Amino acid sequence: MGNNLLFFQVTALVISALAFGVAAWLYRWVAKQPSSNKKVAEIGKLIRSGANTFLAKEYKALVRFALVAAVLIFVFLPEPIWKSDILSNISMAVSYICGTVFSAIAGKIGISIATIANMKSAEAATKGIKPSFMAGYRGGAVMGMAVVGASLLGVTLVYLITGETTAILGFSFGASSLALFAKAGGGIFTKTADVSADLAGKVELGIPEDDPRNPAVIADNVGDNVGDVAGMGADLFDSNVASMAAALVMAASLGDVKKNIAMVLCYAAIGLLASIIGVFTANMKEGGDPTRALNMNTYVTTVIYGVLTAAATYVFDFNWRIWGASAVGLLVGTIIGMATDYFTNDNKKPVRMVAKACESGPAFTITSGVSYGLMSILPAMIGIGVSALAAYKLVSPLGAGGNEVAYGMFGISMAAVGMLSIVGMIISNDAYGPIVDNARGLVEMGDLGDKALEITDSLDSAGNTVKAITKGFSIGAAGLTVIALLGAFITEVNDAIEAMGLGIEKITGFDVTSPVVFFGLLVGAAIPAVFSAMLMLGVDRNAQRMIAEIHRQFREIVGLKEGNPEAKPEYDKCIEIATVGALKELIPAGLMAIIATLVVGFIGGVQAVGGYITGNIVSGLIFALFMSNAGGLWDNTKKYIEAGNHGGKNSDAHKAGVVGDTVGDPFKDTAGPSINTQITVVSLVSSLAATLFLTFSIF
Amino acid sequence: MGNNLLFFQVTALVISALAFGVAAWLYRWVAKQPSSNKKVAEIGKLIRSGANTFLAKEYKALVRFALVAAVLIFVFLPEPIWKSDILSNISMAVSYICGTVFSAIAGKIGISIATIANMKSAEAATKGIKPSFMAGYRGGAVMGMAVVGASLLGVTLVYLITGETTAILGFSFGASSLALFAKAGGGIFTKTADVSADLAGKVELGIPEDDPRNPAVIADNVGDNVGDVAGMGADLFDSNVASMAAALVMAASLGDVKKNIAMVLCYAAIGLLASIIGVFTANMKEGGDPTRALNMNTYVTTVIYGVLTAAATYVFDFNWRIWGASAVGLLVGTIIGMATDYFTNDNKKPVRMVAKACESGPAFTITSGVSYGLMSILPAMIGIGVSALAAYKLVSPLGAGGNEVAYGMFGISMAAVGMLSIVGMIISNDAYGPIVDNARGLVEMGDLGDKALEITDSLDSAGNTVKAITKGFSIGAAGLTVIALLGAFITEVNDAIEAMGLGIEKITGFDVTSPVVFFGLLVGAAIPAVFSAMLMLGVDRNAQRMIAEIHRQFREIVGLKEGNPEAKPEYDKCIEIATVGALKELIPAGLMAIIATLVVGFIGGVQAVGGYITGNIVSGLIFALFMSNAGGLWDNTKKYIEAGNHGGKNSDAHKAGVVGDTVGDPFKDTAGPSINTQITVVSLVSSLAATLFLTFSIF
Repeated sequence: MGNNLLFFQVTALVISALAFGVAAWLYRWVAKQPSSNKKVAEIGKLIRSGANTFLAKEYKALVRFALVAAVLIFVFLPEPIWKSDILSNISMAVSYICGTVFSAIAGKIGISIATIANMKSAEAATKGIKPSFMAGYRGGAVMGMAVVGASLLGVTLVYLITGETTAILGFSFGASSLALFAKAGGGIFTKTADVSADLAGKVELGIPEDDPRNPAVIADNVGDNVGDVAGMGADLFDSNVASMAAALVMAASLGDVKKNIAMVLCYAAIGLLASIIGVFTANMKEGGDPTRALNMNTYVTTVIYGVLTAAATYVFDFNWRIWGASAVGLLVGTIIGMATDYFTNDNKKPVRMVAKACESGPAFTITSGVSYGLMSILPAMIGIGVSALAAYKLVSPLGAGGNEVAYGMFGISMAAVGMLSIVGMIISNDAYGPIVDNARGLVEMGDLGDKALEITDSLDSAGNTVKAITKGFSIGAAGLTVIALLGAFITEVNDAIEAMGLGIEKITGFDVTSPVVFFGLLVGAAIPAVFSAMLMLGVDRNAQRMIAEIHRQFREIVGLKEGNPEAKPEYDKCIEIATVGALKELIPAGLMAIIATLVVGFIGGVQAVGGYITGNIVSGLIFALFMSNAGGLWDNTKKYIEAGNHGGKNSDAHKAGVVGDTVGDPFKDTAGPSINTQITVVSLVSSLAATLFLTFSIF
Repeated sequence: MGNNLLFFQVTALVISALAFGVAAWLYRWVAKQPSSNKKVAEIGKLIRSGANTFLAKEYKALVRFALVAAVLIFVFLPEPIWKSDILSNISMAVSYICGTVFSAIAGKIGISIATIANMKSAEAATKGIKPSFMAGYRGGAVMGMAVVGASLLGVTLVYLITGETTAILGFSFGASSLALFAKAGGGIFTKTADVSADLAGKVELGIPEDDPRNPAVIADNVGDNVGDVAGMGADLFDSNVASMAAALVMAASLGDVKKNIAMVLCYAAIGLLASIIGVFTANMKEGGDPTRALNMNTYVTTVIYGVLTAAATYVFDFNWRIWGASAVGLLVGTIIGMATDYFTNDNKKPVRMVAKACESGPAFTITSGVSYGLMSILPAMIGIGVSALAAYKLVSPLGAGGNEVAYGMFGISMAAVGMLSIVGMIISNDAYGPIVDNARGLVEMGDLGDKALEITDSLDSAGNTVKAITKGFSIGAAGLTVIALLGAFITEVNDAIEAMGLGIEKITGFDVTSPVVFFGLLVGAAIPAVFSAMLMLGVDRNAQRMIAEIHRQFREIVGLKEGNPEAKPEYDKCIEIATVGALKELIPAGLMAIIATLVVGFIGGVQAVGGYITGNIVSGLIFALFMSNAGGLWDNTKKYIEAGNHGGKNSDAHKAGVVGDTVGDPFKDTAGPSINTQITVVSLVSSLAATLFLTFSIF
């Protein structure tokens, strides 16, 4: 039974379809919730159309990028077309395009529901916390189901049709390309709008936050959707696909191929099923604690996954060691999430200490925040290291007699699959955040009353707390996935050596005492730093453009500043600037990472690339953890001060806290999370171009 | 002739002695310069005695630490005493103590001259730029000669007496222990004083900078000496010894041992000789440009080194490939220095852009500065990677027939020796900076007139510019040195495997696809982040203590704030707080790095340690480059604004620039440069404990 690959492929397809069914049902449930307030509807519509404008432009830019990439892939990958079977080049290029399209569709669904659910949640808040929570949560769950359904569907279909695991790498690369646009582009968009709205509106012109006179205010709300909903979804789509791709590529190179592949699909399908069940158990009583409700679902899903995979392992006679590897991944993911929580939760020491430092001025806010951010790197690095080590040691004995390394790396990839198994639940929780954040803004702009504001405030705060945990999870998962991709890279290189009959020895690894590897290691480690710097500078430049536009509108539109109801700000101009600027600033950063990979590969060959990927992973994890956690820490510090501590709102400590938060914004919402995608892109480019590096490198 | 080891040992000793002779001559020359102003003498004396107080306390703490370490070394290293020849344990422990003592003496000499030369340079400024420059420069050169003379003398003596290269690692570890105290402790001291003096004096109490009423003002000036003179000297003593130690350990494991060792000593001696000649060519005309004068010396020294080593290679029949490796190191060092200059020079784009961002407020100062700091990582990483690769490729053919790797690693160590060959000149230029900085303060406090102030201003500014180049040099050199130390670690492990008759295979390298290595890699990469965070938090805590003391003095000493000449602040209390606090905050950080190394080693064995060192190097370089360059960038941005740009002093842009500078201070003067030492300590601990890891590790 465990060998009946088709059975598992069909099961995976069925469960993917089920996920889409659930998404559709939830979508209709949310859409059916009452909405009557005209002001909310009006503003909500502006947000919705702004988000759609961004998405349309982004996808248009992506289409051009993807077509060029697809042609290059068709010509060169997996082997130059003049040397290879044309069919595999076609299937690679088509898989690539499917990867972008599937992810794009999931993103579109997510934006579509998020810009409805925000209004529903806002209005429901006038009735109580339960309906408001449910509207927000089920809206997020639509995104969760769509993303995971689409990723499992895509991977299964590509493998079913092509019968090749390398084509799945193409699909994964497509997903990464989209994630690069969605996450980095969305990240630049959201922070451009956020920073400009605050700086020009609150600081310079002295009008309150979320004031409808501010031309950037709608762009700011749009940003939450395109950055935190669509961007985050694309990022996790990417990680999820990459983890499956790595596991499948390695599974295909090991003995008992069918059974291994069957197991990967089976575990992934069970993860999705567990998430579906988790979504439906999500509930809370009137007066309940939303944080508890959100975390409860995660724990329920985790337990269901553990039990069902154990049952499947027993029934289908899969290997218990591999099951163990996936369980280790899930367990360590939870631990990393908790560590992240420690560094960003306002009940814990770091936030309290930074809040105290705010009293001494902004410089101390920054140095202390940077310090705790740096410290937060350690537990996650230990967690990822230990889980990789444990998974490897568990699984490598299966390869006794010369194949230990390959099995060990497969074990690591299964730990990544395990860590990402509950990704459906994670996305649901994550997308809930920006929805209720938007709802809060709508409650304020729509004057829905203090009670509703209080309710959406508490829902929003729960979203922030839960975010820390899910963010830790996703960085940890990305870490394990890219380690697994390093294994996939070796597999690809060795396949190419065999296929091309190069007559050179297969590679077994990358020795850091080789100077070529070390050279790659140093250069690879510098790339995430440069990449995040380019994104942050992009936000700065873009914000300057938008601030100039805000100034222009206040100057030229008569009566706008005075609040004349006839004077309407041109919201769409600001959205346009954020959109165009985001795409313009993002492309050089993405290309830099890809070109650096190719340069290193063509100079130093596969050994240099091995070092390069390793350096990229290590430094990428460091910066992703540092930036995400420091940013989250500053955000919560500001909120903690606003809650009345250290002088409360408008005190000097608060001003320092605002500086910290403004620095943290591009850290945590632009650069930090985009690094995950950058690492994945680099790893996939390397694997895909393995043959080229073998053929054309200088060393 | 090239084989006559004794000849080269004696030559090295003679040139070391010559360096001490030159130092003595320069010392007397500086001391003979006229000084008559009473106020300058009075303040100068306070600074001098403050610096001596710190040094005495620091050395006292060090003695305790070193004694414990020496006992542990005696019991356990190079092998546990119950298994080994007791003589080699004694020579290891004694070498360790010599390492600390030699470096301590050099530091003491440096502080002693710096606290004289500052007064001489201040007074000479009333006569013209030339005498003022010469007093500052020759004061710095005393430190340069003392440090390099002591390091070459120590290494040569240890090898001459013990005949063992492993004992040199002990000497090097002693130098590192001292550097940890001097650099990190001095760094905490100087920033504690700087930050507290500014915050309590300028910001809270509204008295000007360098105002003698401020109880922290003397501590601030003391800080320049203990941090930038003694600390920097100990750091480069450490790097210089470590590069020689790594080269000698590897040379001893290769064929033609005597000739290789002779060459290392010969090149090092020539480097010192070239620096001596360079020091004496240092000159400038009245009205000349001090930056040009300083850079000129560096170029002269570089050329002399190149020519003399080529001559020696020809005469003594050394290998040209190895000469090439050392030349590559020197060349790349210069290139890295230039890249650093680009990111911190106020004529270049980065500083200009950050200065512009200051107009939008402190948050933008920080994000743009962080961005350029992150970008500055890339050229140095490429430089280090390329020079390591080139040196390896040049030298490895000498080991044709199975010994390529060992020779290649030896080549890298020779590139490090080459890069550090002109270290005497680098220290001279570096120590010049704080001396003329102090001189500027004395001119101001002693009311020596506007012309003198202008002169010392221009000398100070030259010091800052040159610092960027020398700092790039020293980080690059540390990078290469620690790569070489990785080679030394392998050598030590394999020697131990042979000596202990363990019957296991010798190791050839560290493969990152081994999960044990990867585990080490991830943990090792997190350590520099945690280490620098601990130091920065230490500065924050310590500054809070000192600010409380400043408040107390203004409260309790009657008439102090009003400027009553009878009311004297208690300067020594502030110095005491900075001193005690610095040592208290530094020790946990240092122990953390050492203990983490031992934990990883005892868990994962030598393979995990190999990964750990690698991760530590990569991440250490990243953070050292980022922090040093971002800090330098903010410093110069503030100065650029103060020069009248973007609104000049007291504008909003200036306030934002001050925030940037205050954040940058602990980056560039505490955490950044201490990371070098942390990496070296970790690498040396690993090499020294190699035998223990082999015997006792879990995996």
